[in-house]
Amino acid sequence: MAVPTQKPSSPHQKLERIVILGLPSFLKRQDKEFSSKFQFLSPSESNLPLEQFLEAEAQNTQAAVCSGGFKISAEVLRHLPSLRLIVTLSAGLNHIDLSECRKRGISVANAGNIFSADVADLAVGMIIDVMRKISAGNRFVKTGLWPKQGNFPLGSKLGGKQVGIVGLGSIGVEVAKRLEAFGCKISYYSRKKKPFSSYSFHSNIHELALASDILVICCALTEQTRHMINREVLLALGKEGLIVNVARGAIIDEKELVQCLVQQEIAGAGLDVFEHEPHVPRELFGLDNVVLSPHSAALTEGVFRNSNELVTENLEAFFSNRPLLSPVLDDE
Amino acid sequence: MAVPTQKPSSPHQKLERIVILGLPSFLKRQDKEFSSKFQFLSPSESNLPLEQFLEAEAQNTQAAVCSGGFKISAEVLRHLPSLRLIVTLSAGLNHIDLSECRKRGISVANAGNIFSADVADLAVGMIIDVMRKISAGNRFVKTGLWPKQGNFPLGSKLGGKQVGIVGLGSIGVEVAKRLEAFGCKISYYSRKKKPFSSYSFHSNIHELALASDILVICCALTEQTRHMINREVLLALGKEGLIVNVARGAIIDEKELVQCLVQQEIAGAGLDVFEHEPHVPRELFGLDNVVLSPHSAALTEGVFRNSNELVTENLEAFFSNRPLLSPVLDDE
Repeated sequence: MAVPTQKPSSPHQKLERIVILGLPSFLKRQDKEFSSKFQFLSPSESNLPLEQFLEAEAQNTQAAVCSGGFKISAEVLRHLPSLRLIVTLSAGLNHIDLSECRKRGISVANAGNIFSADVADLAVGMIIDVMRKISAGNRFVKTGLWPKQGNFPLGSKLGGKQVGIVGLGSIGVEVAKRLEAFGCKISYYSRKKKPFSSYSFHSNIHELALASDILVICCALTEQTRHMINREVLLALGKEGLIVNVARGAIIDEKELVQCLVQQEIAGAGLDVFEHEPHVPRELFGLDNVVLSPHSAALTEGVFRNSNELVTENLEAFFSNRPLLSPVLDDE
Repeated sequence: MAVPTQKPSSPHQKLERIVILGLPSFLKRQDKEFSSKFQFLSPSESNLPLEQFLEAEAQNTQAAVCSGGFKISAEVLRHLPSLRLIVTLSAGLNHIDLSECRKRGISVANAGNIFSADVADLAVGMIIDVMRKISAGNRFVKTGLWPKQGNFPLGSKLGGKQVGIVGLGSIGVEVAKRLEAFGCKISYYSRKKKPFSSYSFHSNIHELALASDILVICCALTEQTRHMINREVLLALGKEGLIVNVARGAIIDEKELVQCLVQQEIAGAGLDVFEHEPHVPRELFGLDNVVLSPHSAALTEGVFRNSNELVTENLEAFFSNRPLLSPVLDDE
């Protein structure tokens, strides 16, 4: 029996319309099942400027999917009057005007915990890399210096080090769990003491830095945490101190960080995120004690599949009036 | 009251004479206490060839301290007829002719477990580095490619990976403990099943490689383990497989490893040790999926202090007829 090889074209009027903001490659990665459930409106595939596109095409659209790089301002929201849901593919929410969303009754879902383990892996990898000079040693060997120069500088021991976790959310917990296995001692800073944790708590970031050999930044970027790691905190971390950032660049005052690294006021850094990505301060390029990474902490082979699944599940839950899978919680 | 600022010179005839083999910088690192207990004979500070020096100076010497790079052959031992103890600063013993030592009744002490945690840290650091492309990403950012090229290739997820530990000694156990915290599944190969371990045991290296995403070489180099990781084992590890070596270069057939890496028959490698150190096959220099390190797994800031303490304690134990602190055990 002959089987039709082509599906009948889906009746568009029955599909929910979803606006895709800032994800030009997102649609290409969709599997057939996903595309058969929703109709996607993509301003990036239109010749119209964003706001004209939204006014022309998206006035009745109830849901949007966005990347972490797309700024969802009050102005953008004004052009989406029917919007009731934003699903962001990022864990961070600093690109979304959350107070405007609250005002307009728009729900927001994020990537939840799906990146946490991978982000923690990169954080720990960067700590070991800087302390044990892995990238620098790799360069030393690959440029043929070993037979010529002999000794390579000693690295630092990880065991016994005091690690301060800034933000004990799902990423911070994963970082701590891994570093405990290396014999590190964990303490943390957050707005409130976490009842589930037995790690030593500091309510003051300056005190945490004073008590730490290594600071790992794992918190959300908010108005409260912007430039929270300032010159004073870096000086409290001190000449032997190492800082690792897998959260958002602007949590650290980048200008002061560069100054501290160049003047050896702290010992080193592992940075996956920056204030003005993809632009990275050139002063860091020549420093062996600084390991830089192109905001790739969450990017491993299965990430798009996992993240698309979560987006689908959040959209389906929304349109069938079930609770979202990864709603943004106000209490972090 | 005037206090004499200089100690009276020690009466040399009362000090035990220790021959130092292959450690030109060892004596300089000694603290005063150490030097006041022993008299060191250092062929590297003499103009005589080694064997003439030993015949002239070391005929009554009962103890020797050596580095891992100094070959203690039957021939060297023949020139040290009174020798009863060798203390090596290395964990590995492949530079010492152990069967000749047994024949001559010479005890051997090594570095015991003092390097295990640091070596395991580097092994795990190299695994994360290769899988998450840390060194490659660092180069990508530091050469200014991020703003020009945008996307950086995805890394591999560590969680859920099958890790095969080759040699579950003190280093292997530390590697396993760390990788469990990353959600890896551990199995191991050794000559005998370890009664203390619940990890899955393979009595055949080929089977371990077949079952593993990552092989970590942590065993001693012996006649049995030389080139144990041959082409067949590498092909069993396979195109997606990663190999990390923090043990000794010659456990892997380096020529075959280079071939497999160049032809992408395995996915990547992290290598701290090589067959002909400090010479490293140049074919590896251009490969982003290979991270090289100048035999520095044990080299962290406190290493010389810790290792000198252990040497002193072994020498003191020997000369006062107490058991050695880190004797070499025949059963690994």
